[in-house]
Amino acid sequence: MTDQRISIFIISDSAGETASKLAQASMAQYEDAQIKIQIVKRAFIYHEDELIQALEEAKAVNAIILHTLVSKDLVNIANNYGKEHNLFTIDVLSGLVDELSNRTGLEPSRLPGAMHFLSKNYFERISAMEFAVKYDDGKNPKGFLEADILLLGVSRTSKTPLSLFLANKNLKVANLPLIPEAHIPPQLWEVDPKKIVGLTNNPKVLNRIRRERMKSYGLNPDTAYSDIDKIKRELEFANDLYKKLGCLVINVAQLSIEETASIILSELNIEDTSYFG
Amino acid sequence: MTDQRISIFIISDSAGETASKLAQASMAQYEDAQIKIQIVKRAFIYHEDELIQALEEAKAVNAIILHTLVSKDLVNIANNYGKEHNLFTIDVLSGLVDELSNRTGLEPSRLPGAMHFLSKNYFERISAMEFAVKYDDGKNPKGFLEADILLLGVSRTSKTPLSLFLANKNLKVANLPLIPEAHIPPQLWEVDPKKIVGLTNNPKVLNRIRRERMKSYGLNPDTAYSDIDKIKRELEFANDLYKKLGCLVINVAQLSIEETASIILSELNIEDTSYFG
Repeated sequence: MTDQRISIFIISDSAGETASKLAQASMAQYEDAQIKIQIVKRAFIYHEDELIQALEEAKAVNAIILHTLVSKDLVNIANNYGKEHNLFTIDVLSGLVDELSNRTGLEPSRLPGAMHFLSKNYFERISAMEFAVKYDDGKNPKGFLEADILLLGVSRTSKTPLSLFLANKNLKVANLPLIPEAHIPPQLWEVDPKKIVGLTNNPKVLNRIRRERMKSYGLNPDTAYSDIDKIKRELEFANDLYKKLGCLVINVAQLSIEETASIILSELNIEDTSYFG
Repeated sequence: MTDQRISIFIISDSAGETASKLAQASMAQYEDAQIKIQIVKRAFIYHEDELIQALEEAKAVNAIILHTLVSKDLVNIANNYGKEHNLFTIDVLSGLVDELSNRTGLEPSRLPGAMHFLSKNYFERISAMEFAVKYDDGKNPKGFLEADILLLGVSRTSKTPLSLFLANKNLKVANLPLIPEAHIPPQLWEVDPKKIVGLTNNPKVLNRIRRERMKSYGLNPDTAYSDIDKIKRELEFANDLYKKLGCLVINVAQLSIEETASIILSELNIEDTSYFG
């Protein structure tokens, strides 16, 4: 309509991660259009005066307001302010929080930032992240037996980011890069194959990714690393190993990390319990 | 009300991460109450028949439905099904997506999973994660100058998980553990102090965390590592260094990773651009 910049105000009593995710998913629907959207985050809002200040700032730029507040008072202030001043306001949490109350007959705790309490579950997530870093890249095969999931794959099959993404779901993940010439650690054969995931990719995709990588290092893109025949041999070696292990195999060529992770959880029958704060 | 288990169905044309975050934040409000909530995820739903199957499954258990669908047809089917069968249904995205259309006069792309397209931004995030792992734990001080943020801190001040969390926001983060006896890499003095964050903690909190850590390793909790005087000396050494550097200092004792990250972005004036798919 106009060239005016659109502002989205995220107002939260915690870090504002839930509303950010919502903004992100919605904005992704206009990616090519290059509309200018400014995200303004007002996090850790606990007091009425802080809230009103944030609302006034939002009003000054006719912002869209997304709020994730749990105090009933603050929720009411935000919603009423939005109505009075005709601001487009989304009360992100109340619908689901209230419905859970209706169904259980229980009152919500109304404690702000309850997701991030320094709970047992939270510390498990931290441990899982540290585990992923410690046992990344086959650094220490002793981690294989402790891991919930062991990822195998040739270079550039997204082992590291996938390990970290799964760590965020409280899963202990180790990964081992597969190189035909290299020694396979004997611990691999002790791992329950139901915990192993073999990652593979299309030779052409790997060739392109590896050439790009070499270029980004300022090196000649056409080395043995990106040679298509060598890549095919690597993938063959990996696929043979996956067959011997009898593990799940995923071709990541067309998949994002989120998609691959979702497939792993569903195929290995792992319940995502990271929801419980 | 009843002992019946509550089911939340997450129905998405992508991995379902946005609705999961919403469910997680709402459920955290009932943490102590130990209500039994079952999350069922139906991800990558692109076709009408898949959607109807998921809706029928949801109906069978009178589930709460959270959907993040972008196809207008699928959105309508889900919303109408919910109304017809009296199911509590939250259309997570439509409110914001439609408002952005109203304001811009543009049509949303309606491409499912648009967040996870294998875009430039997505690959930047992957690189940032790999960077964090590569330059974790002071492994290679050459990374300091390439980093967007350099985290310093004594043992157990959450350097690693914080680095990974920030990497998820497309930021290149290196970290260096501080040990009084150890050599400080000379590269530290070449880094712009505006990019450095010194993490600190309360001696008693560190003492407790480190004792727990030793116990979890099956070791004697009362070693030099957890000695309160030694911890105080370490923290003093760290704080002296932070003063010399003139960097931002954050005490993480009462903060979650999300909170610390949020403070860092705001204090270092870094805009979170990871929203743009």
